[in-house]
Amino acid sequence: MHTEFTDLVAALDIGGTKIAGALVDDTGRIHLRTQRPTPAQEDGESVMAAVDAVLAELTASPLWTAVSAVGIGSAGPVDAAAGTVSPVNVPGWRGFPLVARVRTTVGELPVRLVGDGVAMTAAEHWKGAAQGHDNALCLVVSTGVGGGLILNGRPHPGPTGNAGHIGHISVDLEGDPCPCGSRGCVERIASGPNIARRAADQGWRPGPDGDASAAAVAAAARAGDPVALASFARAAQALAAGIAATATLVEVDIAVIGGGVAGAGDVLFEPLRAALAQYAALSFVRGLKAVPARMGTDAGLVGAAAAALLDGSARSGGGGPR
Amino acid sequence: MHTEFTDLVAALDIGGTKIAGALVDDTGRIHLRTQRPTPAQEDGESVMAAVDAVLAELTASPLWTAVSAVGIGSAGPVDAAAGTVSPVNVPGWRGFPLVARVRTTVGELPVRLVGDGVAMTAAEHWKGAAQGHDNALCLVVSTGVGGGLILNGRPHPGPTGNAGHIGHISVDLEGDPCPCGSRGCVERIASGPNIARRAADQGWRPGPDGDASAAAVAAAARAGDPVALASFARAAQALAAGIAATATLVEVDIAVIGGGVAGAGDVLFEPLRAALAQYAALSFVRGLKAVPARMGTDAGLVGAAAAALLDGSARSGGGGPR
Repeated sequence: MHTEFTDLVAALDIGGTKIAGALVDDTGRIHLRTQRPTPAQEDGESVMAAVDAVLAELTASPLWTAVSAVGIGSAGPVDAAAGTVSPVNVPGWRGFPLVARVRTTVGELPVRLVGDGVAMTAAEHWKGAAQGHDNALCLVVSTGVGGGLILNGRPHPGPTGNAGHIGHISVDLEGDPCPCGSRGCVERIASGPNIARRAADQGWRPGPDGDASAAAVAAAARAGDPVALASFARAAQALAAGIAATATLVEVDIAVIGGGVAGAGDVLFEPLRAALAQYAALSFVRGLKAVPARMGTDAGLVGAAAAALLDGSARSGGGGPR
Repeated sequence: MHTEFTDLVAALDIGGTKIAGALVDDTGRIHLRTQRPTPAQEDGESVMAAVDAVLAELTASPLWTAVSAVGIGSAGPVDAAAGTVSPVNVPGWRGFPLVARVRTTVGELPVRLVGDGVAMTAAEHWKGAAQGHDNALCLVVSTGVGGGLILNGRPHPGPTGNAGHIGHISVDLEGDPCPCGSRGCVERIASGPNIARRAADQGWRPGPDGDASAAAVAAAARAGDPVALASFARAAQALAAGIAATATLVEVDIAVIGGGVAGAGDVLFEPLRAALAQYAALSFVRGLKAVPARMGTDAGLVGAAAAALLDGSARSGGGGPR
């Protein structure tokens, strides 16, 4: 039965808020979708129980017989080589053997683990704004700043699955200390909470609804508030320095930016493009473009599926995403 | 004749001071070597005449019949896709069609062009300090700061052959303007001339010989001069921020550092390693090492040869460097 789906993969998207699962075909279409809240503050076994509940719904589907591989995108850091994850926002999982535990359910199927930034990037390259670009950087700018790379037409996860971690490169070597231990990191300047904090520090005050989030700062910026505009401009400057550094290091020609902060639209992208023109100075990076992401909330699932389809151990010579 | 050399390649190393050529076998051994001064301030045809003179010596050798490919490493920027070069220090060459001009001499042989940073990196990976590392960054710190990347076991030149250009990533987004047009670039802080300038600005004065170079500053630092030590520490800080950014972006586990400034030894490497411990903060980059380069002045020729041997169009299934 269901032999029309010879290339289904099971995808898991594991974050600090929810654990999502899906069966995805080799065109990127989602055929079955389920999710559970992440019991992020509970012990590691409780978190795994939520993963198992998602997997149980997938394996119970009559489509499961067509599944040939499993792809997992997880909040990082991950260790793809060891098959373990240590998501910052899930304290019960430190070096948690997620791949081995998933294998107890899925048996002999190949399992591919990547960081969530790598997964989002694979999705934007396969079906989104980075389609047709052999060398691309994708970023998620929200509570944190994550990212991933496409190099030579394929995702570049790096040996541990964490490559593209642009949020924690320093663009201000004497800058504010970052919780990661470094200083002046892109995330420390450009994340939503830091945009909101900087605006508040400079005297911006929320309206009657009391909303002091980066989205509220973005609304104020659109209305012309100079402090709100300045906070977004500073975030844009840090993002531009990081994006230009990435392009100068590995030669990408597009930066795809998603996440809540990217939802600010021109308030972010206008100063970002102006700053990129300064920081991306060398001839071979001058054509670099910055565009909004297109995959929305499905990026994690579609990207985990793409990672599984791309894995050489999953299938040989298949169509899959390129 | 000379059938024992079935895998010779011709290598050209083109810089602002000299143009070197060699015939190199597939173990990296140099069998014939020649060079000419670069008439860097003359017109483009005069510079090409020096290249032709080097090529003429190579093609006149009885070994030439065993040559299967040509590799060129050139001062950048280069455009590997277009086959053109625009070396900053050779004003007569702007978009100069070097590959097409070399082809008029070498006929049907495949010609591979890469930037000099990529070439040096290929050499250190093949025969030097990055041997056995599938993911590595190599830097040249001298009058400028250049570099190159090994990713997944192979050089990553990028589409135009300029990837790894670590000298022009900004690590100080409000820093001093750089001649490239950006601000706070690694080169603007860490190159030899900038180390010397900063020491002089802070009151360091050369000895009786009048030598105010970075090498003289290094000697003073070794003798304990605090201003000289501080200038090297600042260079080390910028290099560490750039190296850590690279590792965080693409997952390299070693940084190999050559060039005149690296000759300062512990005066550079001690503060560099201390600063790396701060900037390389995430778990997956904490093991990052910084070591001196090993290939010396042959790096350009051996690396150009490596690039030619690695090129898929040069040979199929050959031994070559991996």
